[in-house]
Amino acid sequence: MISKKLKKKLLPLAVMSTVAIGSLTGAPGISEAKGPHKSKNAEIKNVIFLIGDGMGVSYTSAHRYLKDSKESKLVDRTVLDQYLVGQQMTYPEDPEENITDSASAATAMSAGIKTYNNAIAVDNDGTEVKTVLEAAKEQGKSTGLVATSEITHATPASFGSHDESRKNMNAIADDYFDELVKGEHKVDVLLGGGTDLFDRSDRNLIDEFKDDGFSYVTTKKEMLKDSSKQVLGLFADRGMPKMLDRGEEVPSLEEMTTSAIERLKKDKDGFFLMVEGSQIDWAGHDNDIVSAMSEMEDFERAFEAAIEFAVKDKHTLVVATADHSTGGYSIGANGIYNWSSDPIKAAKRTPDFMAAEIANGEDVEGTLKKYIDLELTSKEINSIKEAAAGKKAVEIDNAIEKIFDGRSNTGWTTGGHTGEDVPVYAFGPNSDRFRGQIDNTDNAKIIFDLLEKGKKKTRIEDN
Amino acid sequence: MISKKLKKKLLPLAVMSTVAIGSLTGAPGISEAKGPHKSKNAEIKNVIFLIGDGMGVSYTSAHRYLKDSKESKLVDRTVLDQYLVGQQMTYPEDPEENITDSASAATAMSAGIKTYNNAIAVDNDGTEVKTVLEAAKEQGKSTGLVATSEITHATPASFGSHDESRKNMNAIADDYFDELVKGEHKVDVLLGGGTDLFDRSDRNLIDEFKDDGFSYVTTKKEMLKDSSKQVLGLFADRGMPKMLDRGEEVPSLEEMTTSAIERLKKDKDGFFLMVEGSQIDWAGHDNDIVSAMSEMEDFERAFEAAIEFAVKDKHTLVVATADHSTGGYSIGANGIYNWSSDPIKAAKRTPDFMAAEIANGEDVEGTLKKYIDLELTSKEINSIKEAAAGKKAVEIDNAIEKIFDGRSNTGWTTGGHTGEDVPVYAFGPNSDRFRGQIDNTDNAKIIFDLLEKGKKKTRIEDN
Repeated sequence: MISKKLKKKLLPLAVMSTVAIGSLTGAPGISEAKGPHKSKNAEIKNVIFLIGDGMGVSYTSAHRYLKDSKESKLVDRTVLDQYLVGQQMTYPEDPEENITDSASAATAMSAGIKTYNNAIAVDNDGTEVKTVLEAAKEQGKSTGLVATSEITHATPASFGSHDESRKNMNAIADDYFDELVKGEHKVDVLLGGGTDLFDRSDRNLIDEFKDDGFSYVTTKKEMLKDSSKQVLGLFADRGMPKMLDRGEEVPSLEEMTTSAIERLKKDKDGFFLMVEGSQIDWAGHDNDIVSAMSEMEDFERAFEAAIEFAVKDKHTLVVATADHSTGGYSIGANGIYNWSSDPIKAAKRTPDFMAAEIANGEDVEGTLKKYIDLELTSKEINSIKEAAAGKKAVEIDNAIEKIFDGRSNTGWTTGGHTGEDVPVYAFGPNSDRFRGQIDNTDNAKIIFDLLEKGKKKTRIEDN
Repeated sequence: MISKKLKKKLLPLAVMSTVAIGSLTGAPGISEAKGPHKSKNAEIKNVIFLIGDGMGVSYTSAHRYLKDSKESKLVDRTVLDQYLVGQQMTYPEDPEENITDSASAATAMSAGIKTYNNAIAVDNDGTEVKTVLEAAKEQGKSTGLVATSEITHATPASFGSHDESRKNMNAIADDYFDELVKGEHKVDVLLGGGTDLFDRSDRNLIDEFKDDGFSYVTTKKEMLKDSSKQVLGLFADRGMPKMLDRGEEVPSLEEMTTSAIERLKKDKDGFFLMVEGSQIDWAGHDNDIVSAMSEMEDFERAFEAAIEFAVKDKHTLVVATADHSTGGYSIGANGIYNWSSDPIKAAKRTPDFMAAEIANGEDVEGTLKKYIDLELTSKEINSIKEAAAGKKAVEIDNAIEKIFDGRSNTGWTTGGHTGEDVPVYAFGPNSDRFRGQIDNTDNAKIIFDLLEKGKKKTRIEDN
């Protein structure tokens, strides 16, 4: 077993908590607006932190309108709606860009610092910074990372590894194994995609994890059957299939979240779990409203599972938020005051999937008929036929997406991220500390502070 | 004096408040997420309700980034930021559209009901519904409407009049005079644009208001000199000039707000004041980022004036929110992770103003040089020259706006409204009741409830 030397910048927790309190109460009037920073139940044992990657306010709002049962004239609230506490700022501290990427934003939320885009839990000097997952592990808690991307992707990586660049996914996978906290692997539960990053020509991390007692699972069935406290679950070579394209063998984000909680809750010292709905963002980059909405649903079910556990447990803080928004997505476009969700719900597969089928030689009209429950116009069908002539899946994909954009009145301004504030949801003891207008760094600052307070309390109880 | 017969649908306040409490606490877990619905200081005498028309989360976020002093690496928070309490849903109840207009949204916020687009405080049956302004007046409070649009425009109209269509601005002006509450004019302070709607061939409402004891002012100087409790102030034939194009004779939204408060606070029974930053929305419709940002500033200063009064007064509830967002505006566009505010701040006048000058024959290059503090490229200048060839101000305006969009990396998807949730800010006694995810109708429901409770309290004290 290799023990990597860390030049970790140890952020003193006492300093962190001072910063947190300062930034949250320093503003005039904020105590009035945000209310008392107390809770009936201040003892936190577990923290579940959920990130909807790219989940800006247009996504959470649209998802509500799409889900609405239409049984009454009032729109049904989503599960997320019930726990909204405020919004957060997402800007990075990057010499060249002021709109964040997922690495910088996740580092802000995991370590409480602003850094450059691409940074995985390192600061602007390249120094490694302690994450809330590591702080939890130091206290003897169990820890977990769950994502639908590669588990080495920017967001989970920023909680469980350190690297100057998000692109170094092999090194990030190595970190999960090599970087020890008090002599132990720092992440007990790893569930997501990315077999390619663990089973490599230069190293087989799967075998190494297994040698150290981790279970290894690759299907939903295996995951559900296994109850080990430590598990590596890799369900795809790279990113996992999207909700709409998922087969029976692949677990949902909710199922992975529940599986993680079931394992982690066995630790009497509690746990820290980060869960990412990774592909809301990927759908946004692709300007794909069909996948954006189904990935939102996948994320919300995972959030609901976390809430259900926390309601029963009473000592679990649940926070859900986004790292940024993606695509400049708007509910309504081109002057039309109507956003239609029915055409979106008519898709049985993602445009990506349909485009791949067509690019592989499947008949255009037959494929569209098979996977879209709409009477397409000849103009719409012809637009796909024209795109298919070039045999390029990406062009076919774009053409299919345009049908859904046009029918739903969905607008996009970019294939990248956008800089507006994103919603923050919280439940459980001390959830009121996340209220109001916070910064993305405040998430880590508050969690560091709560962990530190929990430690002190435990110390007193031990005496 | 004409006394118009009202077929007003009297919404029983007891029922309203039940509905409000139900919708705010019915969701599981919401009391945990939203905290206790109490305040140290429950006695509310005054309510100031501010609406940034079209002020979605992209606008409030961008305004922060634009205002930032850049003295530190951290972005300075705006005044609004300090009072964020949550978000609200904006959807209307319209047979044909599910994205709201300003009339339907303002009716939701003034009367607590969902209705069709275009409706001015009437429900889907066309029946007039009581507004919070009217309820305040019934209790003997003074009332005011302040806007930078015509004071008869959809948003103020939905608080102080009733009409089947927002387009009937003459009838709306008539309502301000003719609809009496307990024999009195229901709006004591009217400050905004729209002389054309009051001084008409068929009727001169200015004279009628003056005959009934109102002061009439048409300039900032006159407004500041006058201290009457009742005033009609009309500072433009239709909408007022935008902040960037405003002359010395025209008051700012902040100055109108302060003038309104100074008058209204003389009433020992308290007051209700609605203030609208009307032209954030107009800038959004025009896809004009320069005016959107300066109108945001105009609005925030008015909000700050309201907060300053409320901090001293201690019995004033201040709520600020938007009716919807406009334009599908995004911070960042076309894949670029940078939104630059410097080019926006370089504009000394609005694109509308510059376009009008050029359309009127002014030299293109000279006009751009005079009003834009940037070294424009020859390509940029040529784009305006090409647009100017057609002599149409709207085309010149669009071309100038494109320069700012390109330089700032601003994106737009529509010339209309969009359906995402909008931020809610609150300060003062019972401001915590606006916390979390609320509906636009909740604003009125809560205010009705607070007014009712204030009335009961007064009754008890009178005995």
